[in-house]
Amino acid sequence: MAKKGGKKPEQRDLRRLLRIPGGKRVDLASYPADATPAGPKDKAEGLAATARMSEELAGLQERLYAASTAGDRRRVLLVLQGMDTSGKGGTVKHVIGLFNPSGCRIKAFKAPTREELNHPFLWRVMRALPQPGEIGIFDRSHYEDVLIARVRELVPRRHLARRYGQISRFEQSLVDDGVSVVKVFLHISYEQQRRRLLERLDNPDKHWKFNPGDIDERALWPAYQEAYEIALERCSTDAAPWYLVPSDRKWYRNWAVSRLLLEQLRELDPQYPKGDFDVAECRRRLT
Amino acid sequence: MAKKGGKKPEQRDLRRLLRIPGGKRVDLASYPADATPAGPKDKAEGLAATARMSEELAGLQERLYAASTAGDRRRVLLVLQGMDTSGKGGTVKHVIGLFNPSGCRIKAFKAPTREELNHPFLWRVMRALPQPGEIGIFDRSHYEDVLIARVRELVPRRHLARRYGQISRFEQSLVDDGVSVVKVFLHISYEQQRRRLLERLDNPDKHWKFNPGDIDERALWPAYQEAYEIALERCSTDAAPWYLVPSDRKWYRNWAVSRLLLEQLRELDPQYPKGDFDVAECRRRLT
Repeated sequence: MAKKGGKKPEQRDLRRLLRIPGGKRVDLASYPADATPAGPKDKAEGLAATARMSEELAGLQERLYAASTAGDRRRVLLVLQGMDTSGKGGTVKHVIGLFNPSGCRIKAFKAPTREELNHPFLWRVMRALPQPGEIGIFDRSHYEDVLIARVRELVPRRHLARRYGQISRFEQSLVDDGVSVVKVFLHISYEQQRRRLLERLDNPDKHWKFNPGDIDERALWPAYQEAYEIALERCSTDAAPWYLVPSDRKWYRNWAVSRLLLEQLRELDPQYPKGDFDVAECRRRLT
Repeated sequence: MAKKGGKKPEQRDLRRLLRIPGGKRVDLASYPADATPAGPKDKAEGLAATARMSEELAGLQERLYAASTAGDRRRVLLVLQGMDTSGKGGTVKHVIGLFNPSGCRIKAFKAPTREELNHPFLWRVMRALPQPGEIGIFDRSHYEDVLIARVRELVPRRHLARRYGQISRFEQSLVDDGVSVVKVFLHISYEQQRRRLLERLDNPDKHWKFNPGDIDERALWPAYQEAYEIALERCSTDAAPWYLVPSDRKWYRNWAVSRLLLEQLRELDPQYPKGDFDVAECRRRLT
């Protein structure tokens, strides 16, 4: 795959390769979760390649932030979704850890509070959006409102059916306002989830990450996969496409998410603003 | 200095060394801003020593967060104050960058908004506090309300006089609730500020960080130093002491702030909570 077209993996557009085509039936079982499309050849190269992106990512982030001080409203929103143990938290740690933390606005969405339930489902999401120049990260998101809400039947079906369109219109409005929405589905296999849950059980230092309720959720795996397939099909739009990142291999997952952000930031190509002051005079005044 | 007591620098308590004694007149001019008390011997060693702390810091942070999932309310609040160019932003980038970003809650305080001005001055601070298990970082803080507010006479003197006590009582209430408050004054010299402002002028990519108004503020240097001296004297309490970090050398600043956080986290000694479930049964159920 890496040889196709004679280009090195790094020169190809990973966004095009991992993008879920919207409006077409999605069959998650047809995507191998341990694949490494366009990726480095092994773990050692993957870690090195990810580390090599760090400087450029941080540089682009600084320009994005700098541009915002001169009125550029652009910002990035990374949405992370995936089954339990798919590595949402690990992605934040390893990928977002490459950035300057002061420009990142991270929000982990848990079960909605009573106050949040008293508002439309997008209310809490609106309040957590990144500001101009920032990189926002959602660990879970408004998609939970068509995922667990569907599987656990938390809302009537007719409400649920409306939500897909509401989400797509909401995301379109974000894009219209200068937000680059990068939605990433971390795709793991049923067997890989089992291994990761067992790892948590085997290591007492990881027991705090384990909840017996996770096993009950796992029993609903097929229903969740179906809920994801519907959400990916209906909400992968031109404005805000979904990317599927095979995530059984953590090094590939981190490389791919870093690379998706890199491509997005390169496309934005933010620039340091010019100062609107007299440099020579300022220099004279500085005694 | 490093030889005192025959201990290596790393074994000594930096918090004791850098702490501002409360209730005594503070003379900032008596603290050399380019000193490196108890620090590594040069920049190369400083960078290496800071990098070496990374793993332990991240490990302690994970334990702190893990403990919060079992009801431990403890958290840390790092308050960063200092003159323009003293390196508050750089400290966030280099020191907080050592942590897992998902457990950090960073807030940069700017000039108060109209809404914020319509509330008591501590209102906006209360809303930005870290939650249990988190490390909160304030880039500027409620201390601006006795610094710029004093120098620029933004409030009547009698209001200002009340604020020192209000701040100390507020911080005591945080400590009572399980917050470790680590307040760091990044101390730079007048000459060092000039060099850093000139650097910004000399590099067009840094013009966005420069504001001619910074030169007007600089003209008020003695008034700001005095305002700091009063705040440090009145608000360095046993519950929430102030630390003075000489910050003319960036590598020392980053090392010292990392080290202060390390000592604080070691003292907290957070532990992974024990799981309250039947591991063997969970393992059986995981098919």
